[in-house]
Amino acid sequence: MVSLENIYHVCEETVPLYFAMILGYLSIKLWHLFTPEQCAGINKFVSKFSIPLLSFQIISTNNPYQMNTKLVISDALQKALAFFGFLIVTKVCCEKSMDWLITGISVSTLPNTLIVGIPLLRGMYGDEAVRLITQIVVLQSLVWYIILLIFFEYRALKLSSQVATATQVTEKERNSNSDVSGELESGARQTREENREEKVANKTATKTSLSFMLNVGKKIAVNPNTYASLAGLVWSLISYRWGIKQPIIVNNSLHILSDGGLGMAMFSIGLFTASQSKIIACGARMEVLSLVLRFILGPSIMAISSYVVGMRGLLLKIAIVQAALPQGIVPFVFAKEYGVHPDILSTGIIVGMIAAVPIALAYYFLIGVI
Amino acid sequence: MVSLENIYHVCEETVPLYFAMILGYLSIKLWHLFTPEQCAGINKFVSKFSIPLLSFQIISTNNPYQMNTKLVISDALQKALAFFGFLIVTKVCCEKSMDWLITGISVSTLPNTLIVGIPLLRGMYGDEAVRLITQIVVLQSLVWYIILLIFFEYRALKLSSQVATATQVTEKERNSNSDVSGELESGARQTREENREEKVANKTATKTSLSFMLNVGKKIAVNPNTYASLAGLVWSLISYRWGIKQPIIVNNSLHILSDGGLGMAMFSIGLFTASQSKIIACGARMEVLSLVLRFILGPSIMAISSYVVGMRGLLLKIAIVQAALPQGIVPFVFAKEYGVHPDILSTGIIVGMIAAVPIALAYYFLIGVI
Repeated sequence: MVSLENIYHVCEETVPLYFAMILGYLSIKLWHLFTPEQCAGINKFVSKFSIPLLSFQIISTNNPYQMNTKLVISDALQKALAFFGFLIVTKVCCEKSMDWLITGISVSTLPNTLIVGIPLLRGMYGDEAVRLITQIVVLQSLVWYIILLIFFEYRALKLSSQVATATQVTEKERNSNSDVSGELESGARQTREENREEKVANKTATKTSLSFMLNVGKKIAVNPNTYASLAGLVWSLISYRWGIKQPIIVNNSLHILSDGGLGMAMFSIGLFTASQSKIIACGARMEVLSLVLRFILGPSIMAISSYVVGMRGLLLKIAIVQAALPQGIVPFVFAKEYGVHPDILSTGIIVGMIAAVPIALAYYFLIGVI
Repeated sequence: MVSLENIYHVCEETVPLYFAMILGYLSIKLWHLFTPEQCAGINKFVSKFSIPLLSFQIISTNNPYQMNTKLVISDALQKALAFFGFLIVTKVCCEKSMDWLITGISVSTLPNTLIVGIPLLRGMYGDEAVRLITQIVVLQSLVWYIILLIFFEYRALKLSSQVATATQVTEKERNSNSDVSGELESGARQTREENREEKVANKTATKTSLSFMLNVGKKIAVNPNTYASLAGLVWSLISYRWGIKQPIIVNNSLHILSDGGLGMAMFSIGLFTASQSKIIACGARMEVLSLVLRFILGPSIMAISSYVVGMRGLLLKIAIVQAALPQGIVPFVFAKEYGVHPDILSTGIIVGMIAAVPIALAYYFLIGVI
């Protein structure tokens, strides 16, 4: 059962997050402290230093040899179910099906586990929950975000090849328009052109698949968070295999910047919230839909996956509650970069953050009662 | 005696500081991550949030009812000796004696106790040293910095009254030049003018002393660090009097931003270092002089004061080493604002920071041997 004491513990962990976020919000709206460019500086510090170091710190303390197999499988199953579900629905209903597929998956299956999840679940279920959600963080940083990036790059590729085809078609039209001298010559030219196009297309295919891989690689290489997560995983593999601990100097050096990571990240979300001209940028209808995806569909799929896999008790509870956290930030960063519904994701972050604690508590109660 | 283990402890505490500072430096010089405006944003975050919260956290955990009387007296004695010493020297030697008096006091007696001092002394002498240096932090934040501010405001006042007098004189000259019609009338006018001037001067005196107080008050009121220090003191007075502890929620809310304070402050010093066109902005001669003041004169006066007051053993050691820390940052901020040798203080911070550990270790050894 859930007691008042439990709720107080949740508040102990989450109120500080909101305190930092509200300070960030007020420093723009009330005190006019930072210019947009100065905010960009703080956000850059957060994304290049605070969050990667925090990721490293969390992932490097996770024992990769004692991952909970059921949790890993159910997490993967949730993503697979969401993928095939959205694949069918978006093919049938949407014009830009790829865009909506990506957004649907992002909104329903990729919550903010690192910044909001860890403190919130610690407040609810204690350190055992932290150990489990850390495993979700590892999977998210090193598997799901990279797959999401591949989706985005694939979409960009399709888009650019469409543009290329369109350009070719226009060119051909222009050529045939300009060539009005004789029917016979035109026929011969067309054959020549078609042959050339085929060759170009073959070349382009090899080129694009190579450039596709290169692009994905490049994006991963410039993302400090992926680096940091990978380094964290490698370190955890070494340290738990041979029982090696980080020297205190190294540990302190990382902690001096990562300790503030949580607060800085929330402060920066506050700045971000204040800098939006509209809180609900995507419109009320879309917002309701995205809230349903995030807070009802996502946790429901996770509940089904987890139950099917055989999870019961505390593990099942943690799996469901972690799926009902606010929108993750990385999918928004990608969405903004590739121009795929960033408004929906930004609204998801802001509204999700505001609604996070009541919704998490609602799940906490509901699950506690059941 | 000082062992290798002692030195390792010092490194455990100080290397992380340099790690953060070097990251800040490299993010400008090597990675070109931040524009100057973005750096300004990060610096503002540090000065408005990180440092004040860190000050609050440190000062609020200091028991004000168990201040070490000898330490407080010797600290005050050091400042008094430096004040009278520089008063005589600057009156005799310098043209702008007030400017050099302020700079001399800043450089020789106001070290960086909060950011560098606490970790360094913890590494050297353990938690007892932290308890003692915290008392120095309290005095510095709430007494010496406010007195320093009064000095700066007094100087600004003198400067503006000089300008005012100069303007009056010029005006009078202009009047007498333009008035060439008759000697008699001129004499009558002069008397009238002198009377008026006297009245104006009296009025100005009351006005200026009032505006002087107002200016000092205003500066204190807009300085979040003074607020935070004062709040810390008030809280410590309450909590140690009635044994009241901060609720965990409040404590966590403050820690979420102050935990990163140390790292952010060092990162921001790194940014600052990288953004200087010259490391030794004030010239080599002046730099040597300021290093002598900071690292030899300051600790020497402190050593004499402390010995005279009757300090011996660990307390004496701590008092001397804390006086040999790098240049404090607040005096530089004031110096920049009032335009009084900011180049000397900025160089003092940068060179002092680089030289801090070797110099502190040198003192540590020297004192350990004695």
